[in-house]
Amino acid sequence: MQHVAVIGAGSFGTALANVLADKGCEVDLYARRQEQADEINQEHTNSRYLPDVTLHEGIRASADLAEVVRDKKWVLVVTPSSVFRETLKSMRPHLHPEVRIAHATKGFDIDTGQRMTQVMEEVLAEIDPGHFAVVSGPSHAEEVSRRIPTTVVSASRSQRTAEGFQDLLMTPYFRVYTNPDVIGTEIGGALKNIIALGAGISDGLGYGDNTKAALMTRGITEIVRLGVSMGASQMTLTGLAGVGDLIATCTSLHSRNYRAGYALGQGKSLQEVLDQMGMVVEGVRATKAAYKIAAETGVEMPITAALYNLLFEGKSPRVAVEDLMGRRRIHEMEEVAAAVPLTWES
Amino acid sequence: MQHVAVIGAGSFGTALANVLADKGCEVDLYARRQEQADEINQEHTNSRYLPDVTLHEGIRASADLAEVVRDKKWVLVVTPSSVFRETLKSMRPHLHPEVRIAHATKGFDIDTGQRMTQVMEEVLAEIDPGHFAVVSGPSHAEEVSRRIPTTVVSASRSQRTAEGFQDLLMTPYFRVYTNPDVIGTEIGGALKNIIALGAGISDGLGYGDNTKAALMTRGITEIVRLGVSMGASQMTLTGLAGVGDLIATCTSLHSRNYRAGYALGQGKSLQEVLDQMGMVVEGVRATKAAYKIAAETGVEMPITAALYNLLFEGKSPRVAVEDLMGRRRIHEMEEVAAAVPLTWES
Repeated sequence: MQHVAVIGAGSFGTALANVLADKGCEVDLYARRQEQADEINQEHTNSRYLPDVTLHEGIRASADLAEVVRDKKWVLVVTPSSVFRETLKSMRPHLHPEVRIAHATKGFDIDTGQRMTQVMEEVLAEIDPGHFAVVSGPSHAEEVSRRIPTTVVSASRSQRTAEGFQDLLMTPYFRVYTNPDVIGTEIGGALKNIIALGAGISDGLGYGDNTKAALMTRGITEIVRLGVSMGASQMTLTGLAGVGDLIATCTSLHSRNYRAGYALGQGKSLQEVLDQMGMVVEGVRATKAAYKIAAETGVEMPITAALYNLLFEGKSPRVAVEDLMGRRRIHEMEEVAAAVPLTWES
Repeated sequence: MQHVAVIGAGSFGTALANVLADKGCEVDLYARRQEQADEINQEHTNSRYLPDVTLHEGIRASADLAEVVRDKKWVLVVTPSSVFRETLKSMRPHLHPEVRIAHATKGFDIDTGQRMTQVMEEVLAEIDPGHFAVVSGPSHAEEVSRRIPTTVVSASRSQRTAEGFQDLLMTPYFRVYTNPDVIGTEIGGALKNIIALGAGISDGLGYGDNTKAALMTRGITEIVRLGVSMGASQMTLTGLAGVGDLIATCTSLHSRNYRAGYALGQGKSLQEVLDQMGMVVEGVRATKAAYKIAAETGVEMPITAALYNLLFEGKSPRVAVEDLMGRRRIHEMEEVAAAVPLTWES
């Protein structure tokens, strides 16, 4: 039986702990607050993050990070991107030298713009980078914890590590695909939050399914363009960790980013929305990061630019959408490096 | 001012006639039934197909096909695929020799499996095939008729024809992109109905957004695989006429195919569902056609095969979904010809 540490008892960390316990693993779950750990151990619930869900009784929660990671060969880190680096630093002295670590954190490092595995390679420089992985895909925690059929990607530069986490997590309701493209898997999960904001704004403005589908499709084009320029594979970005996650996020009320966009579309200010959510809205941060990278590299990202203007330059949402619809007459293929060369016959 | 004929006063034909009239075109709209033509001319409504919408007063409806197409240089054909060939045959003696014809019919010819432009080239052999186009994309007629921002693709093997229909239809709320890939544009619109059935089934079974997003993403992979084997460009299939239309169809109650799937997921039989809809469900037919093509060409299409088994072999929807989730452990890239070669480092 495998012994696994899960770091972070938010909704997705708790849901993954539940999957592992279902699978028969011994699971230690790190919760920041002692009361939360007590609730998980005694009531088998995590009422703040997964209301109405009864957790597997085998999950052992603890607020002692050192104890949770000590001697574990498999660790899953599932914290917000804002505390990811600090958490790794705290874990570091207690890690097994042969540990394999996957993260399931969607976003960029706030200070450096780094991807999460880049932060791992920097903070945990003594560990073989082939031991790092990312788990990502269309996987609302609420549904995973209710054992609703879900698919994700386990990506690592090492096949053995990717397959290790696949073996660990795969259950009849949680299907894991492997992928060698770490960059694409991480970028897909971070950038889709930008488009989720846009989809929420469109719905908040009262536009329709046609508008939202157009925004999402053109949004995928942008993500692919930026992602490929950053070293990702197009196949990953059009797979589960890119398009799949985008679809799940843009069409579900589970998504904080979609809900934040919806409120913006209804006319609320960014500050009002952030105050009201009381939680990190990764899409806002990702918009800023992507806008900056696009400007530096010359990648055209009209939807991201429109969102940036709306979030940080005070443009109204309706004008932003109209700007997008009114752009010059265009050939669909014009903006993308066509995989198959397309030409007119006459 | 352009003078345009629209053939077919169903929901989408009527919506397109409205776009053209908004644009200042003179529009003749062919309706099969005289009473329907009268209603459009006198009440400016088409209550059966577009309830609660007031149409542009400039639209002239007629049940006389010859009169509608006579002398027109621009014709849009928007009939169900089942009557497409017959309609072309009836139009043929009355067409202007220099006419350009676009269709907006999503599906395959029932008898031959041909795409609609293939039917056009066969029936209207005397017309330059460069004069044919297809208009397709995420465009629920109900929303187009309410002037909600919508995007579509105008595809033709001739740039002049594609741009001609772009110029004709483009308005501030109806954005038209051109594309030389006729095959991809037609196939995307036909095959997405298969996945819409599957998405409806998943929701009808009570599964979640994770499941539906996975089905849609894996469905896109299948569509791309089959489409490319039939000569389509991958870029078209991941653009508005493929993924875009798929998203709009799978996430909207406007879609007949999604609704039919939902009823199947709830345990209704195919016959009950078809009787209840009282309309053509293109996805059922498209599943049969795609299953046949896939079998002949050896293209792997697990979702289409599962749907085929469910629709025509009496397999239960739950078992079909479980079959899909339980397939052998897999590498995400395994099934697709990767555009960028991906390999493990170690």
